[in-house]
Amino acid sequence: MTDFRYARRSAILGKSVFDHAPGTITMSSGAAYPPLLPDVVREATEAVGPLRAEAMQYAPLMGLDDLRSEICRFVATDGIEAKPENVLVTYGSKSAFDLALRVFVEPGDRVIVTRPTYMTAIHIMRTHNVQFLDIGQDAEGFDTDELERKLMRLRANAEPMPRLLFDVPDFHNPTGITTSLARRKRMVELARQYNFVICEDDPYRRIRFEGESVPPIKSLDTTGHVISLGTVSKILAPGLRVGWAIGEAGIIRRMALQKADGGSNAFAQRIVVQLMQSNKIVHHVDELTAQMRTHRDAMLEAFAEHLPEARIRAPLGGYFLWAELPEGDDAERIAELGVEEGVEVSTGRLSFPGDGPGNCLRLAYSFIGEDEIRRGIAMLGTAYRRYKSAARAA
Amino acid sequence: MTDFRYARRSAILGKSVFDHAPGTITMSSGAAYPPLLPDVVREATEAVGPLRAEAMQYAPLMGLDDLRSEICRFVATDGIEAKPENVLVTYGSKSAFDLALRVFVEPGDRVIVTRPTYMTAIHIMRTHNVQFLDIGQDAEGFDTDELERKLMRLRANAEPMPRLLFDVPDFHNPTGITTSLARRKRMVELARQYNFVICEDDPYRRIRFEGESVPPIKSLDTTGHVISLGTVSKILAPGLRVGWAIGEAGIIRRMALQKADGGSNAFAQRIVVQLMQSNKIVHHVDELTAQMRTHRDAMLEAFAEHLPEARIRAPLGGYFLWAELPEGDDAERIAELGVEEGVEVSTGRLSFPGDGPGNCLRLAYSFIGEDEIRRGIAMLGTAYRRYKSAARAA
Repeated sequence: MTDFRYARRSAILGKSVFDHAPGTITMSSGAAYPPLLPDVVREATEAVGPLRAEAMQYAPLMGLDDLRSEICRFVATDGIEAKPENVLVTYGSKSAFDLALRVFVEPGDRVIVTRPTYMTAIHIMRTHNVQFLDIGQDAEGFDTDELERKLMRLRANAEPMPRLLFDVPDFHNPTGITTSLARRKRMVELARQYNFVICEDDPYRRIRFEGESVPPIKSLDTTGHVISLGTVSKILAPGLRVGWAIGEAGIIRRMALQKADGGSNAFAQRIVVQLMQSNKIVHHVDELTAQMRTHRDAMLEAFAEHLPEARIRAPLGGYFLWAELPEGDDAERIAELGVEEGVEVSTGRLSFPGDGPGNCLRLAYSFIGEDEIRRGIAMLGTAYRRYKSAARAA
Repeated sequence: MTDFRYARRSAILGKSVFDHAPGTITMSSGAAYPPLLPDVVREATEAVGPLRAEAMQYAPLMGLDDLRSEICRFVATDGIEAKPENVLVTYGSKSAFDLALRVFVEPGDRVIVTRPTYMTAIHIMRTHNVQFLDIGQDAEGFDTDELERKLMRLRANAEPMPRLLFDVPDFHNPTGITTSLARRKRMVELARQYNFVICEDDPYRRIRFEGESVPPIKSLDTTGHVISLGTVSKILAPGLRVGWAIGEAGIIRRMALQKADGGSNAFAQRIVVQLMQSNKIVHHVDELTAQMRTHRDAMLEAFAEHLPEARIRAPLGGYFLWAELPEGDDAERIAELGVEEGVEVSTGRLSFPGDGPGNCLRLAYSFIGEDEIRRGIAMLGTAYRRYKSAARAA
């Protein structure tokens, strides 16, 4: 075995969130619900048939023109005004976020995140060797007062200022919280005042079970400080790997030039164009939202029945539920016992940029149906009882 | 317009190689020949039909198991021994190369390349802010003597040693040269002696018109110093965006963890599995090779007729032809006049990591048919005459 000197960013090893324990009920991943994966046979046949010369060839660096136009139309219904020059097609919003980091962040730079935040975003940021400036959440979402206090202190101490803020303001991953309009406005003000870029990751906004939508942060941006990251992974199919970044044209062009592989997958892009043009995507989102609501309800009921000790804030949309166990409980051990029982969940610690509390769990209700959700939470309840009796015996 | 501080790597701007002048005969890009784009209607229909639960879902981080097994079988015929744990599926070999850079290179590190080398690889390396250690080529390919001299001098001066070597040893892009077996062995010896990693980019090896194959550098590697980068872009279709890296398992795992977007496109991966399992890929390569040979022949004949001033070494395979104009000729101006005439070629300078000679052109014969090749070179000949008479008049 050869001993190479690896780059500092490559010190990040450990378990990938994409690897699952086989044969378990999987609540650890926000994967798509298999029975509702869209039927794209017609679209795919057309793409590789009559449209083969486009679908099988290199795509333009920015993505297919038709797709960029459709994305503009799609986000216009959320109040985001964008022209094709503002849209870069990527492999899902994760790779769009990586491109933004490549453009704005040097190793050691500070990035603002919530604590907890999206675990894979933490992984991606770690590959850029960032420092985290972590900010709390309350029922109104992102705590802009805490951010302002911390920014003022950094400036007063002449410390390096943060370059970028990452957040999931709608149905936050993992906490499910939606940030209020007032807070969003304040986030944009602070971004302008302290000159950092906001990456608004917005995969779940259309999966809303109840209540009124809040305008995207990007729709409040008049100075180019916000980049909106979108994807079809959570509203159509993750396997398509089609996402986008929307921002000021100069920023988008810089992000495009950081792409290592040119114009992404023309084939999948054409399928998404067709699904958007035919409005199939809108009907699919409606069906999916109804389905995810029944999943959430099943999970809430199962918690009440099998694990009432957990404190849960019912999510109003999205794919995830955040469970807080009584203080002092060891979520990591409970998750291990869960795998023994046949259910896989994520410990909350994975979602913290630093050393978070040890008593939280993140549960996805997206991938499995109601019955499995009930059985899985029952297993988790059994794991919890086993943990408690072992703790009493010790 | 806001004034952000961008990361240093984002200073790379300028024209993308994916943007083409509209309405011209394109010889500037190694895109696929449209009439030979493979018919994958059956494979695509199966992937999004019966296999939808896999194709539309997140793929495993390393890629589909079936594909990694097929890739092992595919490269075994080249003498490369690999197990699935040695194979990472990526979006083409470009993104595989980017992952290798993420693992091995810090900003300012030295990377060994030929002068000239693959223009997009230069772009990708620049986004990592590397320094280039450039090495010449002769008829036997990579000049290992020059490399050894330079390595010895760096060591003697206690300068930082290079971390990585990038090369296209088969039908080199842009020069078309294939590096000899003796030189390949020497490259591996030097990699071991000076402890750098060789990234062997191998997209063209199967597009051989005449002569005997030379074993891949990876097949000569017993110590894990070589990473083989492969892709179906040049042998099936660029639009699939399926490539791979093959290397020592520990390196491959590190590269996987640098992926921002998880397990790539399951859909396209399944199509490639099917094309490999059915051996359709082998038949396709045979057909494609025959076609590319006629393209090369047409281009050579057209040069002899319309631009005999250019010095050309007939490529024995691959997609590209390297033309050296008489010393002092301004290839950039000739290329501009070419666009006016209706043909687009790449100036040789784009393929040099530093400031290369100004009298070379890179021409791809992959994308267009024989007739367009003949017409395009005739236009280039006209552009050359115009350049010469303007030069005489000045």
